[in-house]
Amino acid sequence: MALISGGGSGHEPLHIGFVGTGMLDAACPGQVFTSPTPDQMLAAAQAVNTGGGVLFVVKNYAGDVMNFEIAAEMLDCPNASVLVNDDVSLPKDHVAGRRGVAGTLVVEKIVGAAAERGADLATCKALGDKVNRATASMGVALSSCTAPALGKPTFELADHEMEMGVGIHGERGQQTLPLASASEIVKQLAAAIDEELKPQKHQPVLLHVNGFGATPAMELYLVYQLALQHWQQRGVKITRSLVGNYTTSLDMAGCSITLTLLDEEMLTLWDAPVHTAALRWGC
Amino acid sequence: MALISGGGSGHEPLHIGFVGTGMLDAACPGQVFTSPTPDQMLAAAQAVNTGGGVLFVVKNYAGDVMNFEIAAEMLDCPNASVLVNDDVSLPKDHVAGRRGVAGTLVVEKIVGAAAERGADLATCKALGDKVNRATASMGVALSSCTAPALGKPTFELADHEMEMGVGIHGERGQQTLPLASASEIVKQLAAAIDEELKPQKHQPVLLHVNGFGATPAMELYLVYQLALQHWQQRGVKITRSLVGNYTTSLDMAGCSITLTLLDEEMLTLWDAPVHTAALRWGC
Repeated sequence: MALISGGGSGHEPLHIGFVGTGMLDAACPGQVFTSPTPDQMLAAAQAVNTGGGVLFVVKNYAGDVMNFEIAAEMLDCPNASVLVNDDVSLPKDHVAGRRGVAGTLVVEKIVGAAAERGADLATCKALGDKVNRATASMGVALSSCTAPALGKPTFELADHEMEMGVGIHGERGQQTLPLASASEIVKQLAAAIDEELKPQKHQPVLLHVNGFGATPAMELYLVYQLALQHWQQRGVKITRSLVGNYTTSLDMAGCSITLTLLDEEMLTLWDAPVHTAALRWGC
Repeated sequence: MALISGGGSGHEPLHIGFVGTGMLDAACPGQVFTSPTPDQMLAAAQAVNTGGGVLFVVKNYAGDVMNFEIAAEMLDCPNASVLVNDDVSLPKDHVAGRRGVAGTLVVEKIVGAAAERGADLATCKALGDKVNRATASMGVALSSCTAPALGKPTFELADHEMEMGVGIHGERGQQTLPLASASEIVKQLAAAIDEELKPQKHQPVLLHVNGFGATPAMELYLVYQLALQHWQQRGVKITRSLVGNYTTSLDMAGCSITLTLLDEEMLTLWDAPVHTAALRWGC
């Protein structure tokens, strides 16, 4: 079974940086913040399908969903899709559904490891859906981003404002708030995640702090430390961590927190070797 | 033999992100853009020296050099230092010597691999000096950075200006120029590196494109591609590559190019397994 993802560019290293052993077999990059075309997806599927069919990992955006659906209809091999919608800043019953954000990496890593071990299409599809259900993210921005074609920030933020519950395409977030301290920001992000996932005491979790592109590593470490403390105080077991710029939004300043409730299978697959440009460990 | 580095904070993941198997044994982070103290270096040496002595990797800045020298004098175990001064934007006979910048990672990775294999202090010191001599870097900034204590950018750049030959502490560079295209920028950076290293046809090299903290990955990939073309056209063999934010300058926008002339020993040690927070490959 071959694992394929894709979406608009501007989120690098997602997805192209995750192509390699133990993760994606192919990635389809569209123009900046623009869905790839069904042609790209067909070409990718033809290039990497070795008979077991293809599984698409699709972030929940209307254009991506539509084009991956068209590609799926045109494909003459078995195929399925995992829809990632981990952004809890939007209500569950949002008309377009929740967006797929930094949790996409977690889905791609874990399903990629299963595919590498020879799991079949149905197994990988079920696993991807499970990881997505176990994953919640929320982000905050301290600046907008500048899409090259537009040449100016897509929204304005004053120096002392922040955009809470922000997406990864320079869109406005849930609300514009006065800039708060890092600990106050983490408290808000973590509360939204907790409300969604309700992690129990002793629950093993993966904690992923993701930079949007223009945030210094030092600040990501600070957010990580505060998030770690938040969940440690609640007895939640931070079993694995990942901190860095993985699902970016061009030059946006800010970050997101992603939490995934791990079971034994997911933990083993997270630890499995991966060798890609942007994520590498194991043999 | 234990390998230790350190320097001001604000360059994360350098150096703390490089502590682990196959790279550094300890790192001493100072305050932002401020040398760590000799006490920190002594404590680090006492914590990780297992009898073979310690080797300090020191970026060439007056404060760092002084404090590592004081620590070396106070140490009661065998020790030596490798001074990294890869920034070719400054003349060779600059009064304070050339600065140590992104090439530091290359020194730490290669010497760390040798230390992991049991090489002794003298061998590691000689190897570190060799890697430093084979390495040249130059950077460009599209913005200054904001040190938290100052709270405003340390220098001003207009929208249509860039700072060529810039360091990693928010200091002014070699010259302020009108903003140029990526290909023109890469041409200038590569020319300075070529003048220093004079890579021959068929020479294997490591090409490292380093983001300063606020530059989107997409732009780093563009710079990498242009640099690759530059050296490929000259018959130089880009044998290994590394692209990403590794030696940062807080929230500065811009990047640097580092080239290292590789021999067999350096290539083998670069490929050796490394397991740190920020650099991981192999077993």
